[in-house]
Amino acid sequence: MNLPTHVQLVDVGPRDGLQNEKQFVPAGVKIELVRRLRAAGLKHIEVTSFVSPKWVPQMADNAEVMRGLRRSIDDPRDVRYAVLVPNLQGMDAALAAPREEWPDDVVVFASASEAFSQKNINCSIAESIERFRPVVARALEHGLAVRGAMSCTVGCPYEGEVAPERVGMLAKLMKDIGVQHVGVADTLGVGTPLKVQRALDAALRHYGVDQVSGHFHDTYGQALANTLASLELGIWQFDASVAGLGGCPYAKGATGNVATEDMVYLLHGMGIETGIDLDALIDVGVYISVALGREPVSRVSKAVRAKRVG
Amino acid sequence: MNLPTHVQLVDVGPRDGLQNEKQFVPAGVKIELVRRLRAAGLKHIEVTSFVSPKWVPQMADNAEVMRGLRRSIDDPRDVRYAVLVPNLQGMDAALAAPREEWPDDVVVFASASEAFSQKNINCSIAESIERFRPVVARALEHGLAVRGAMSCTVGCPYEGEVAPERVGMLAKLMKDIGVQHVGVADTLGVGTPLKVQRALDAALRHYGVDQVSGHFHDTYGQALANTLASLELGIWQFDASVAGLGGCPYAKGATGNVATEDMVYLLHGMGIETGIDLDALIDVGVYISVALGREPVSRVSKAVRAKRVG
Repeated sequence: MNLPTHVQLVDVGPRDGLQNEKQFVPAGVKIELVRRLRAAGLKHIEVTSFVSPKWVPQMADNAEVMRGLRRSIDDPRDVRYAVLVPNLQGMDAALAAPREEWPDDVVVFASASEAFSQKNINCSIAESIERFRPVVARALEHGLAVRGAMSCTVGCPYEGEVAPERVGMLAKLMKDIGVQHVGVADTLGVGTPLKVQRALDAALRHYGVDQVSGHFHDTYGQALANTLASLELGIWQFDASVAGLGGCPYAKGATGNVATEDMVYLLHGMGIETGIDLDALIDVGVYISVALGREPVSRVSKAVRAKRVG
Repeated sequence: MNLPTHVQLVDVGPRDGLQNEKQFVPAGVKIELVRRLRAAGLKHIEVTSFVSPKWVPQMADNAEVMRGLRRSIDDPRDVRYAVLVPNLQGMDAALAAPREEWPDDVVVFASASEAFSQKNINCSIAESIERFRPVVARALEHGLAVRGAMSCTVGCPYEGEVAPERVGMLAKLMKDIGVQHVGVADTLGVGTPLKVQRALDAALRHYGVDQVSGHFHDTYGQALANTLASLELGIWQFDASVAGLGGCPYAKGATGNVATEDMVYLLHGMGIETGIDLDALIDVGVYISVALGREPVSRVSKAVRAKRVG
C-alpha cells in the first residue's frame, strides 16, 4: 500500500455545511468560523457561494463574508478560500469586489446523474456544463483556480446506483471546459469502499491523482472507510465539514458531510499529516454548534469532550 | 487485494451490549432479541454471561435465557450461541443445565494491557490466564468451542497505546491454554487502520486467519475503516452489536460497539455475503431500542428509517 504522507483537507462547513440552515447565521459568525478554522490549521476553506439569495438565502451575505476575510494582495496566501458559483452572474458578483476580496478558487458543479441534474438545477448535465464554460474561462482569465464538484458519483436519490462510466463522462466534460481539479462526491453517503474506488478510478482516467479529491457524506457511516479506500488509491485531498455541518436533505435527520474532526483523527492515527490541531478543531466545532444551538455531529468530538469532562 | 467473499458476524448485543444497561431487561425480551436476530440471519450470537450477579446484575437471568433458547440435541445447530464465562464457577453453572441449554461456545477474556487487567479484574494478565486454564479444559471436555476475547489490543484507558507485541504475547498465552479462536478487541475504539492491522498481525503470528476475529468499537467513528483494514488482511469474522447496544464505559455518552447494521451495509455494499437481511436487522434494532427507551445508535438504521418515512 502506497499511502500518502500528507493530506490536504478542505473544510466546506462555512458554505456546504451552513447553506441548508434555516436560521440565518450572521456574517460575523461565518467570518469568525473561517478565522477559527484557519487558526486550527485549515489551509483550504470553502467560505461562501455566489448564488441567488432567492435560492439560498443563507448565502445572501457572500460579499460581506468576503470583505470580512479580505487579505492584502501582498499577503502570502497561506490559505485558499473557495467559493461556489452557479453561473456567470455569480462569477461576476464575486469579481465585482476589490481584488483583496476575491476567492482563490471557484467551484463549479454538476451531477453524474441525469435525473438529479434535472431535478436539482432544472437542466441536463450537458446544459449545466455549457453554462459553466464561460464561468471557467472568466475565472481562469482572472487568475483564479477552478474546481469541479461532481455530485451523485455513486448513488442518486432518483436513479439509484450511478455507473462509474457516468463519472468518467462528467470528468471528461469538466476537463474539456478547463476545470483544473474534480471532487468526487458521494452526495447521498450511500457509497462503500469498492464503489467509491470505481468512481475515483473513472475520474482518474481524465485527471491526475493530484487533481482529484474525495467528498464523502457519512449518512450511512461509511465516509471514513471510503476515505481509507481513497487513500489506498493515492488520493490525498478531501472535503470535510467541521462538526459535520450540513445534514442530509435526502434523509431528514440523517448525518450529512463527514466531520472534519473524524477525518483528522483517522489520518493522524495513520501517521498522515494534515497540519491541523485536532483539539483546536474540536473547539471550532463546538463554537459553530453552540451558535446553531446543537451538538457537533462528530464521534471524535463527542468522545474527546466526554474524556475532557472526565 | 484479496477480500473475503463471505463474512460471519457475531452479534454480541444480547450480552456485551446489554450488560451495562442499568434498567433490568426481562429475560423474555433478551430471548426475543436473540430469536429475532436469528430470524434476521445471524448465525452466531453472544447470548449471556455466567458471571456473578453481584458484578453484572443484568446477566443474573443467564440460566433462564439459556432455557428459553433450548434446542433439541438432534437439532441441526445452524446457529451458535456463545456465553461469556469469567471462571470455573461460571463454567460449571453453564454446564449445570440440561445439555439442550448449553452454549456452543464459551468466551474467556483477558486484556493486552497489564494496567487494565489489574483495574478491571484485579489480577495480572498471567493470573487471569491461569484462572482460565481449567475453564478451557472443562469446556473442551464437554465438546464446547472456546473463544478468547483480547481487550485493549490498541489502546488502554490507563496505559495509552498498547504495543502489538503485547497482543502477540497474550495470543500466545491464550493458545497455550487451548483457546481455539481469538478476538482482537479495540475496547476504547481509539484504533485506526494501520494500528488495528498491527494488532491483528500480532494475533496472526499465533492463530490462523480463520481463528482470528475483529471486535471494534465505534467511539471515535473508526470501526468501519478498521473493518476494511481487517478485510484486507483476510479477516472474515467480526463482532458487532445490533443498534450499537453497549455504550462506552470509558467515555460517558459516547458510542460503544459498532452497530451490526452499519457493518452489514458496508459488507453488502462491497459484495461480501453475510446471510443477514439488513431490513429485518434494522427492525430488530428498533425492537430492542424501543424496549430500552432510546434510538438505535446506527447511522444506517437512522438513514434507512428516515427514507422509509419519506
